[in-house]
Order: sequence, then structure tokens, then C-alpha cells
Amino acid sequence: MSIRIGILGYGNLGKGVEKAVLANEDQSLAGVFTRRDPKDVKTVSGAAVFSCSDLPGMKDKIDVLVLCGGSATDLPVQTPKYASLFNVVDSFDTHANIPQHYSAVDDAAKKAGKIGVISCGWDPGMFSLSRLYAHSVLPDGKDYTFWGRGVSQGHSDAIRRIDGVVDARQYTVPVPEAVELVRSGQNPELSTRQKHTRECYVVAEEGADLDRIEREIKEMPNYFSDYDTTVNFISIDELRKNHSELPHGGSVIYSGRTGDKKHVIEYSLKLDSNPEFTGSVIAAAARAAWRMNNEGQSGARTMFDIAPKYLSPHPDEWLRAHYL
Amino acid sequence: MSIRIGILGYGNLGKGVEKAVLANEDQSLAGVFTRRDPKDVKTVSGAAVFSCSDLPGMKDKIDVLVLCGGSATDLPVQTPKYASLFNVVDSFDTHANIPQHYSAVDDAAKKAGKIGVISCGWDPGMFSLSRLYAHSVLPDGKDYTFWGRGVSQGHSDAIRRIDGVVDARQYTVPVPEAVELVRSGQNPELSTRQKHTRECYVVAEEGADLDRIEREIKEMPNYFSDYDTTVNFISIDELRKNHSELPHGGSVIYSGRTGDKKHVIEYSLKLDSNPEFTGSVIAAAARAAWRMNNEGQSGARTMFDIAPKYLSPHPDEWLRAHYL
Repeated sequence: MSIRIGILGYGNLGKGVEKAVLANEDQSLAGVFTRRDPKDVKTVSGAAVFSCSDLPGMKDKIDVLVLCGGSATDLPVQTPKYASLFNVVDSFDTHANIPQHYSAVDDAAKKAGKIGVISCGWDPGMFSLSRLYAHSVLPDGKDYTFWGRGVSQGHSDAIRRIDGVVDARQYTVPVPEAVELVRSGQNPELSTRQKHTRECYVVAEEGADLDRIEREIKEMPNYFSDYDTTVNFISIDELRKNHSELPHGGSVIYSGRTGDKKHVIEYSLKLDSNPEFTGSVIAAAARAAWRMNNEGQSGARTMFDIAPKYLSPHPDEWLRAHYL
Repeated sequence: MSIRIGILGYGNLGKGVEKAVLANEDQSLAGVFTRRDPKDVKTVSGAAVFSCSDLPGMKDKIDVLVLCGGSATDLPVQTPKYASLFNVVDSFDTHANIPQHYSAVDDAAKKAGKIGVISCGWDPGMFSLSRLYAHSVLPDGKDYTFWGRGVSQGHSDAIRRIDGVVDARQYTVPVPEAVELVRSGQNPELSTRQKHTRECYVVAEEGADLDRIEREIKEMPNYFSDYDTTVNFISIDELRKNHSELPHGGSVIYSGRTGDKKHVIEYSLKLDSNPEFTGSVIAAAARAAWRMNNEGQSGARTMFDIAPKYLSPHPDEWLRAHYL
């Protein structure tokens, strides 16, 4: 019997989860749920679309509900709310609010006897695991995270909000010299500016003041002011042709030591599609949520709490024979 | 209260575990145990040395016993035997016999109400985790493991057994073109010879037939005959000066896809000391064994069965705040 997955929210991430679920032989799609009018949403796979108001009536038809909303306003409400009805998985990534989010999901899931996996994806997610394993094995050391080269959707959105901007794509790029310095095991102190640069491709309205737009981007606090930023104005055709994909990736490099001996651990990702890879991590976490709940477990979980075997569709003996 | 670790077997790995335990603030050394006369063994840290026959009388003084013997003959006997008295951790790496070893340790540990973690280190161990996580997230893909550049103790020993050889060091070296091909996401089929080369540094007896030694090395089945092998004869002084360390490392590269999108996951290690890093992984696993046993769990475990948080000395909330 397959694990029936519901998807709430059908943007890039929702589509990534849909594709991942269909690639997993032990999973099936129970449906896509939306706050919009279901008639207005067409799924890539042809999966059925329902209104999110149908969810409470579908408790017997969904084994795990995946929440694909945003961390700013959607998930803080949705994850605890739906954890009282379903096993849930989200990709909550507002770092400072994780303790509070964990606690709200834990309360709701425990009361309902469900599992709520939060903060799944690659960062937080696979990168977090890499940090935890490295620090646990080598207590004397330091971790460095580099993101990119890849499209930051948050930074692209920030540029789009500037007056006179039609569309934009922002690439986060690690500084090669910084990466090499860390890999060499020298444990450098690196400022924000020394670790990453930001490359912007901007489509401006005809007649817009390009100097002003460039200045507004480069001076934007939090997003750009602490970085060396380059701004390239391009046509809408060029944007569509060369910047329509959402690649991403990066590395967690841990540089540790045992006395006088150095050890460098590196975990890196090179992803053609950020939302499709994130959706794949979420689908594996949904499998784990279902299996842990079937064992009678309940409450909030992160990747740190999940024994790796629960993420795999294969039996334990098979895993030991093939991957150990 | 610290976790009291006993070490059975005091070769390179035993010393690596000793160093790791002393670097862990939550662990202390209960002693080193040997089959030799304890008077003949001096520990690096000055830790007390006991005979292995003292072990049964020290059940109340050791929380986890780490078994540092060999996989060929020591561990198949020792791990089940001591799992009936202690929580144990070993680094059993004879791949074909893992099912049988797991089952023997599981029986003994369950009967005694103890935890037995087997096959800990980096391969099997951290590399195994990397394979499992990658396959679980992306079911459509292929994993490649490259070892080195590093000293293979098994291959060095095999050369030392050849008539006329005084000492030897063998380096396993990944073929750079093969690594690059895999990284590019092309999923090549690679033969044994295409993946690694073998570099040998050999000290021969005076007057020995060097051609015969070189031929015997290159034609040795399993160890060398399937590889491009180079043999360098050097002096004992040069061996001591340039080849006295035991560096190792390697990468697990997973090349997967979601439909038409490629994703490459790479986990790599660059280790100044193979036994010290392996000992560090074992020390973290010993912590997990102790914590799982304190929760009332018993039986055999591998890294696949251990929720990552158990490996860390930090509380769950701290882990979520710092590493997630």
C-alpha cells in the first residue's frame, strides 16, 4: 500500500514535491490543495485539485500532508493547524523562529498523535545534517557554509519590488578564494563580503533611471549592502532565454583537528533545480513521518531526530547489504 | 557524569579512539584492555592498562567498550562476546559478512539489554550515510565511491609479506578523469582499473631481486592485478621520513535526476590521519550507544539506525538553534 501524500500550496515547491512523489514507487498523490479556486489550478501531472477547506474532511484519504507555503506568514499558522489533523512536513526556514515553530508544531502533533517534520530541504535540511555530523565527530573544528552559484528567490523578489523594475534574477556566488582557503584547513575568519558576491540580472522599464535602480539595489540593507554586487541590465527576452531555471547548490565545509592532525569534511550540492531537489528531500521526510507515526511516535521532528533508515523505502537488511 | 569508555586492543585504531575520547568533554577513559601482558603496553595518555581477562569483573566501571581488533578474526568473536556484558562499538568492515555479524551481535545485545553498534568509521560509516541519504532523496541515480589519496594498510601489509621486502607503503589514488566524469553527472560505467591507481613505496632487502618483487606485487590477485600499479623502491630512511603518516580520504559522489534535471551530491573527506578520524567517529557512536541504552533500547545498530542527534553531546534545543 502506498503512502498517500497531499500537497498544500502549488508554487515551485509544490510542483517539486509532486514530481518527487510520482518518482517514489511507495508514494502516491492524494491531491493538491489550494487557497485559490481549484478550477484555476492545473497540476503538471493531472493530479486532482481541491480547496484547502476540503482538508478536514479528507483525514482518511491522506497519510502525510506536505505544506508548501512561505515561512514568513503561511507556515507559522498552517503547520501547527494541520498537525492536529495529519502527519505533516514543512520547509520552515526562518532561522530565528525555529524554536517557537518547533514548540507549536510539537504541541499540536502530540495532542493529535501525529508526526510533524519541520525545516526540511537542503538548508535547513541536508546541510544541517552535515554540520551536526561533523561537529559530533570532531569537537575541535569550525563549519563554513557557502551557497551558490544559484538563484536566490528572496533576493530576486527584493529587486522586483524596486520602482522601474520589470523582472530580475539574482545569483548568489561563493568567492572561490574563500572556498579554497577554507578547504586548505586554515580556519580563516571571513566577513560576509569575503564569502559571497551577488550577481543581478535586471529588466528595467523603458526609460527608467538605470543609475538609480543600480544604486537602490547595491545599497539595500540586509540583502545587498554587505556584499560586492554587480548589476547587469538585460532585455526580457534574454532573461527568459538564459535565466528561466532555478539552479542552486553550495557546500558545507568543516575543518577540524585531532591534536596536530587536520581533517576536512565537505558536503556539496550542485542542483539543476532548487525546488525539485527540496521537494525530493521533503518526499523522503514524508516517508519517515509516516513510518515513525505507524510505530506509534508523535510530536515535532527535524532531520536531526530521524534515524536515516526511515528516509529510505528499502528494508533495513537491504540497506545494510547495499549501502553500508 | 561522563561516559566511561573502555578500549580493547591498542594498535593504531585504539590510539585514535583514546585521543578522541580525551577530546570529548562528556567522555572519560576507563582503561585500555589488551591480550598482551599489560606491563608491556604503554598508553600515549598514561591511561591504565588491564588484561582483557579483567573485563568481566569491570561491568560497573565501563559504560561502553570499544573493540579495536581486526575484522578477519577478532571482531566476529569479540563483538558478540562483549555485547553480552557491555554496550559495544566496533568498526567491522568485511562487507560480505555484515548480515551474519549484525545478527550475532543483535542476539547477544538483546539478551543482555545492551546496545551494539557495528561497522563504524568512515567507510563503512560516514560514507555509508552519504550513500543512504542520497539514494533516499533521489531514487533515480547512481553512487560512486572513490578512496584516496591515502595509505591502504591492507595493501601495505600484502606487499610486506613478499619475500625480500623489508617494509612498504601503498597509496590508493583515485583517477582524476574518472572523478571529473562522475562529477559532471554523466553516470559513466567505470571498471576497477578506471577508478583507482595504486602507488607502492617498497624497501627491499639488500641484494633482493627487484624485478621479481615488482612482478609479484603487480600480479597479486584481488590486491593489485586489476589496477595500474607503480612500484618505487626507496631506502628505509626515505620511507620513515616521507611515508610515516596514515593519511586517507575520498569521496562519495551521487549523480541523480528528477526527470530532465540533474543533481550532484558529493561528500568528501581529506584526513591527515585515518585511525584518528575513524576513532573520532567511533567515540561519537559510543556516545549514541550509551544514550540509546539509557532510554531502554537494546540490540545491534549501524549508523543507519541512529538518529543523528544521539551522536552529539549537545541538547536537542541547542542543536536546532546552532546547526539547523
